[in-house]
Order: sequence, then C-alpha cells, then structure tokens
Amino acid sequence: MKFELTILGSSSALPTSKRNLTAHVLNVYERYFLIDCGEGTQAQLRKNRIPFGRINHIFISHIHGDHFYGLFGLLSSFNLLHREKDLHIYAHQPLKKGIKYIMKHYEGRFSYKIHFHELNTEKKEQIYEDDNLQVFSFPLIHKIPVSGFLFVEKAKLPNIKKAYVQKYNIPIKDIHRIKSGEDFQTPGGTVIPNAELTYRPYKQRSYAFCSDTAYNESVIPMVENVDLLYHEATFKEEHKEEAKNTTHSTAKQAAKIAKKAYVKKLIVGHFSARYKSIEDLVAEAISVFPKTIAAEDGLVEEISPYKDDR
Amino acid sequence: MKFELTILGSSSALPTSKRNLTAHVLNVYERYFLIDCGEGTQAQLRKNRIPFGRINHIFISHIHGDHFYGLFGLLSSFNLLHREKDLHIYAHQPLKKGIKYIMKHYEGRFSYKIHFHELNTEKKEQIYEDDNLQVFSFPLIHKIPVSGFLFVEKAKLPNIKKAYVQKYNIPIKDIHRIKSGEDFQTPGGTVIPNAELTYRPYKQRSYAFCSDTAYNESVIPMVENVDLLYHEATFKEEHKEEAKNTTHSTAKQAAKIAKKAYVKKLIVGHFSARYKSIEDLVAEAISVFPKTIAAEDGLVEEISPYKDDR
Repeated sequence: MKFELTILGSSSALPTSKRNLTAHVLNVYERYFLIDCGEGTQAQLRKNRIPFGRINHIFISHIHGDHFYGLFGLLSSFNLLHREKDLHIYAHQPLKKGIKYIMKHYEGRFSYKIHFHELNTEKKEQIYEDDNLQVFSFPLIHKIPVSGFLFVEKAKLPNIKKAYVQKYNIPIKDIHRIKSGEDFQTPGGTVIPNAELTYRPYKQRSYAFCSDTAYNESVIPMVENVDLLYHEATFKEEHKEEAKNTTHSTAKQAAKIAKKAYVKKLIVGHFSARYKSIEDLVAEAISVFPKTIAAEDGLVEEISPYKDDR
Repeated sequence: MKFELTILGSSSALPTSKRNLTAHVLNVYERYFLIDCGEGTQAQLRKNRIPFGRINHIFISHIHGDHFYGLFGLLSSFNLLHREKDLHIYAHQPLKKGIKYIMKHYEGRFSYKIHFHELNTEKKEQIYEDDNLQVFSFPLIHKIPVSGFLFVEKAKLPNIKKAYVQKYNIPIKDIHRIKSGEDFQTPGGTVIPNAELTYRPYKQRSYAFCSDTAYNESVIPMVENVDLLYHEATFKEEHKEEAKNTTHSTAKQAAKIAKKAYVKKLIVGHFSARYKSIEDLVAEAISVFPKTIAAEDGLVEEISPYKDDR
C-alpha cells in the first residue's frame, strides 16, 4: 500500500531549463492527489507516467500563477480524454471564478463535474477524508492567503497476536471487538488488556506541504512528527532580507522548522531561478537539519509503512 | 543575418512525454517572433536558450487552449523579470478579454504595456512590418476562426558588380541610385542596364505556419514558393475521416498542399497523441512530397540566404 510523493516541479516563480513550476503528486494506495498545478504540470504527469484517470482531487496552495496556471490545460485535457468522474478542487475563493471564466469563454461544457471546495484561510481544517486518508489545510504567511496541506494516513486496525488466540481459545465473534480496542475476558473472568492482545504492524504515514511562506513558527504544531515535510526554500541565507521582504523562506529557515517540528525528513524546494547551482543552499539546510534533501523534478520519495527504516 | 525556426512544441491537443503543445519561434536577425504559445512555452524557451527580452511580438493562430494557455504564464514571467518594452500580441478577439481577466484577477498591473492586434478572420492582411520583415495573416478552416501566418524577409538592395565600377569608373554619387534600380549612363552616352550592373547576393526568405486546419486548397496561393512551410498533420491517412470530422489534416494532405504550392521544404507537426511513433505518418507525407521532415521539440531549421542550397 503505497504512500509515495513525486515532485513534478521544483522551481519558484520562473521555470528554468531543468525545473518546472510547482506541482507534487502524492500516491496513496494508487489514488493520486495532485498538490499545486503550475504551468507544465500535465506534461510532467505524462513524463512521470501518472495516470490522469487516478487524479480526483487537486489541492492548490494559493492563487499565484506559478502554482495554478497549469490547471486550465489539465482540466481541458481531462475533457478531451472524455473524463466522467467528478473532480474535486480545493483552493482559495478567487480561483473558482477563474475556472468558470476559462470554461465559459474557451472550453464550453466539460464531460465531468467539478466540485470546488473553498479553503479556510484562518485556521486548520480537515478538507478531505476517505477510508485511508485525512487531508488538512492550515494557514501559512505570504503576500496573499496561502494554505499548507497535511496528508495523514489513517490508523489501521491492530492485528491480534495469534499466540493469544490459541492460548485463550478466543472465539471468532470476539476478534472484531478486540480489533476495535476492547479487552478480552476469559470464561474464568480474567481480563486480558487490549494492549497485550494486539500489535500495530504499520505506522501511520504523513506528508506535509508548506508552499510559499515566510518563516513561521506557528506552522510547527501543524507539521509535528510528519514523515516527510516539503518546505519552500526560495533563497540562500545571504538573501535572507529578500526572503523576508517577499515573504519567502531561506533553506536554513526551512530546516529550523523541520528541526523544531521533529519531522523525519525534509525536502527543500521552490528555488529561486537565480541560483545556477543549489548545492550551497542545500548545505545550509543540512547544517541545521541533516535529514534534508533537495527537490528536483521527477524525484520520488516513498514513505515506508515500517517503523524506523528511514 | 539569421532566418531560423525553432520548434518548441509539436504535439496536438494533448502533450506527450516527448512533445509539448504548439509553439514555434522564428529568429529574424536576432528578433524572435513567437508563434502560438501552448502551455509550457516559457519552459521550452528556457530549454532552447531563447532570450525572453528579444520577444516583442507574439502571434496566436486561434483560441484553443493548446495554442495559447502558455501565454498567461509567459506574460506573468515577463513582468517578474521587470520587462519594460511594449509587447504586441496578434490574435483573435476572444483572447483580449481573457488576458485582461487574468491580469485583473491574478496579476495586477504589469511593468510593460501590451498592444493587442485583432486578426482579420476573413482575408489575408499584413499585420506587421519592419525594415527586414513583413508578416501576413490569412484564414484557415477549423471549428473556430484560425489564422495562418506568413513571414517574408524584405528584398535587400542589390550589390553592384565591382568589375563594372572599375570598368566604367562609376562615381560614388551614382552608386546609391544604381542600387535603387536605376541604369547607368556613361559620359559617352552609353546606357548600361541596371540588371547588368547589379546582382542580388541574397534571396528573400520566407516561412509559413498553417496551424490547425482542414485540407484547404485556398491556402495554396498564400504559401506559394515559401522556403519553409509548417503544416499541421494531426492524423495518418487511415484516420482521414476523423481528420475531416475534426477539421484537421492528414500528413498526406499537408504534403499535397506543399506540392501544389511549390514550397521548398515542409515540416509536418501537431501530431495526435495517439501515435506512439510517427514514422508511418511522415512516410505518407514523403510519398507525396519528398522534402518533408517531422517536427520535434527543439528542432532548429535555419533558412540559408543563398540560393539553391536546400
């Protein structure tokens, strides 16, 4: 059961010859959740062999062109491919009218229905849930409202230790109750606590996406302990003032957030196109938080369900 | 003095892992004329090292998303790069409002001015002229109004044969008049005809772009004798009916137009994403018009100013 992130675009506002504009896709059990949709996303989906038909939910962090100008083309392509399944878009309010405008003037009626879910700009909120996953949005700090996203795998029911089933001759009718958390009482009246009877083979996996944001410690509780945190790192430390003025972060600031939030691994990305090489920038992050890697287009990060393997 | 075409995108409505959406750039003496602007064009410009600052004129053949959804991102990037030079866009009317909508809701005021030139959907018209180049638009046949574009280098003044300058001792004051087409009269009264005195070292070069169109013989006089014709070839011959129903062309039909118009060389492109390989499709064109090549992203075709070298 996969929980795997693919980076489709890792540049900031301007694309470079090697980096496309922001877009990530999270594969959760073969459902693909698209996170931001900068220009070129549909071509990047093709290159990375992500099946269009498995994308039913698109999350847009904020309404700056480099994070959503790929959406119009993608919606159009879904239509050309005769998509029938409903599509859910989670974004801030100004995008809703834009999609309507483009459809009305340039596209006409689509073969599928779009549901627009407006993000809360003020506080953390659950915005999506299915059997395996919960998704939350939470506010970041930028020139315009921006939301971060947190994807959390749901806890699986625990397994019952087989040895105990035999030892206490537990009847099948009780198995489900024990899995749901109840204790077991033997015919002789002894209570066996649930924790003793069961074990969790898999950990809950999580991914947090912090798109454009100034350094912001109020994000820490939102992303605490996640397996994988993507945090923008537009600038090197030497351009710290510019980061502040443009409400972006340096790589070192991203690493500080990762460290304070005890995340397992950090991906830095959204690099300013001015940097020919991002080696120094990444080194600055690593000096604060060693488990840092650099985003690059096509990077795949699978999060294992087994504990302590990272 | 270059006259050189670069193909930035060669797919039809859907991008593939190897082909981006339609965009060409024509370098005429280091001025870059952008022709169509499908999604991903700005990234393709970067990859092909086309300087953004040299693009002052953008020609959009028609208002289908795969030919202009890259425009919003490009205009936005020009602004981020603090462009100051005016930008001229030649397109059909519905795009004008779209650009205004995007600017108003998502971009704000740009650092440069956009001049929108509405294309004539009914007849051939000169739409641009400078010292070296004339550009014309002409109607094609598609579901919505579509314009083809013809780029024609202006004739250069002829050179005077040096041997004659010496032989007749032609004074400098007469040189310019002869270059402008006049004959030369010797002091003895003999008239030397201009054609004998001069030669044209360079031929006028030309490129025609026939974007989405059904097979349409009325195009022939528009593109007659051009050095390079790009003609869409969305389908193989076996999908001729589909070409007709969708007002597109087959490769063979593109070749027929090239042949009947006596063009020097044909590029076929805008291939349907259904074809894994376009070898057969190109072979069908070559069977009718041998000097056919297939568009591919990054293809560069320089047109030489010297006669008969192709």
